Amino acid sequence: MPGPQTDLVVAVGPDPTPDVEHAVRTGGGVPGPLSRAGALVWTGGPADFPELPESVRWVQLPAAGVEKWVAAGIFARNPRVQFTSAAGVYADAVAEHALTLLLMGVRGLWRRSSSWDREVAARTGTLAGSTVAIIGAGGIGRALVGPLLDLHAKVIAVNRSGRDVPGALVRTADEVDRVWDEADHVVLAAPATPGTKALVGAPELARLKRHSWVVNVARGTLVDTDALVDALRGGAIGGAGLDVVDPEPLPGGHPLWALPNAIITPHVANPPQLMWPALLERIEVNVRRVANGREPLAPIDAGRGY
Amino acid sequence: MPGPQTDLVVAVGPDPTPDVEHAVRTGGGVPGPLSRAGALVWTGGPADFPELPESVRWVQLPAAGVEKWVAAGIFARNPRVQFTSAAGVYADAVAEHALTLLLMGVRGLWRRSSSWDREVAARTGTLAGSTVAIIGAGGIGRALVGPLLDLHAKVIAVNRSGRDVPGALVRTADEVDRVWDEADHVVLAAPATPGTKALVGAPELARLKRHSWVVNVARGTLVDTDALVDALRGGAIGGAGLDVVDPEPLPGGHPLWALPNAIITPHVANPPQLMWPALLERIEVNVRRVANGREPLAPIDAGRGY
Repeated sequence: MPGPQTDLVVAVGPDPTPDVEHAVRTGGGVPGPLSRAGALVWTGGPADFPELPESVRWVQLPAAGVEKWVAAGIFARNPRVQFTSAAGVYADAVAEHALTLLLMGVRGLWRRSSSWDREVAARTGTLAGSTVAIIGAGGIGRALVGPLLDLHAKVIAVNRSGRDVPGALVRTADEVDRVWDEADHVVLAAPATPGTKALVGAPELARLKRHSWVVNVARGTLVDTDALVDALRGGAIGGAGLDVVDPEPLPGGHPLWALPNAIITPHVANPPQLMWPALLERIEVNVRRVANGREPLAPIDAGRGY
Repeated sequence: MPGPQTDLVVAVGPDPTPDVEHAVRTGGGVPGPLSRAGALVWTGGPADFPELPESVRWVQLPAAGVEKWVAAGIFARNPRVQFTSAAGVYADAVAEHALTLLLMGVRGLWRRSSSWDREVAARTGTLAGSTVAIIGAGGIGRALVGPLLDLHAKVIAVNRSGRDVPGALVRTADEVDRVWDEADHVVLAAPATPGTKALVGAPELARLKRHSWVVNVARGTLVDTDALVDALRGGAIGGAGLDVVDPEPLPGGHPLWALPNAIITPHVANPPQLMWPALLERIEVNVRRVANGREPLAPIDAGRGY
């Protein structure tokens, strides 16, 4: 007969919140102090991330994009630890937000009617028959494909590897340069890495169309904000739907606030009331996987930065 | 050998516009004067609808909802003529508009952010896991089902007959009363008939939820506007997205204009630039069907009123 299995002791931080501890227990882990833990579930930011004892082999982070952890050197400092992000956890919520911003733009509803003036009709477009490029075909991007196809849009999905995305024409990251001519609209859903910094700048905006909408639900740094302001002011594109901006928070008085065809939402695609239940579910799943000797979901490749 | 086929002479009115005549020709008809026509393609309203000569057996109308033609007595006056509406022609465009209004409401984007104030996060909901009732599962309603399912909503489709709508729980019109308790959100896409007048009134609004959005892309008369104003003011429901209202045009100073959670668009779900190509395609298809002795699409049942 096998001996008793060793419990997976999971530290919960920065605060030992009861619902996280409940998720740990439901997943088959045992909440305990970091000093004797084999794993850490961290729901805070990188600033107060603790020194890890030797015993910790796995750390679950709460964010889908982990560029701040990269910048803080946390992965470099803990080379023997398997970190997992929340990649994919919030994909549906963020994809829904992206679709909302895109539809508001394309349908001309970025300006609210305050009288029965049918001038809005002239700026009402449709996704039907248009081509939407999704830059970054991870969880968010793939969650967008179905609704876009249902709305009779064509979809181009850009991902690093060129792996198949059902229903979409796939372009690799190396081919992204073709997309600015091919697409009517662009949705940014890629991680913030050195390779995606200012991916959308003046040259790319100039190649989009006067009716094009650019939606960013990834990270503000993917767009050259000054170039975007110029493009919006000059009518080079139809508009932008931005849940993320650079800089963030966007200061009062920034020119973007004054542009009617810049729909700005203050990084709320994944608000706490939607995020928290989804994160607890992932914590439970990943604790169960690790407790049973399996690989946890969404392992971070420190070299790639996501 | 069969003799030469008789040409289907199709009158085009109120004006003989070249693109309509082109669609008639492409469909195999011959544009000609009403006095010797077998059919009429009418792109105007009911007010200036002409007296029809005996020879006319089929009339194509430009609208999907024909309650104004009913009211004008045009069907009653021409009992031997087969009228067809544009039902289904604009379904995708109107469904896209309905989805936009619903998402704007549910995601909390009915109020535009003008600073990086994350209070919007608190009102951000999601369609995922919610139940959306579509009242009237014709072309518009059925076009909505796919995107809603992709966004992980559950769908209740209400139609007269209870016929199957793939992916949706179907309720017959007789069962509509159950829907106000079952649904989180309601989309109105049913024709304006005596049976749907004020379908959504004070009792129905009271049974919806404080987070419920009501979207109307059908006809304004389906909603009791005064009751809706009360419900919006009192917070009985989350909000309303209205492309159609009663009365229409909605006069300046009407209380709906002042309610932030009433998103009003001035009957633009199907603007001319989207409508016209779709209508031309239907004209071509229906001329071809009639010229070949087949039933045209979307025959109007004068008794039902749509």
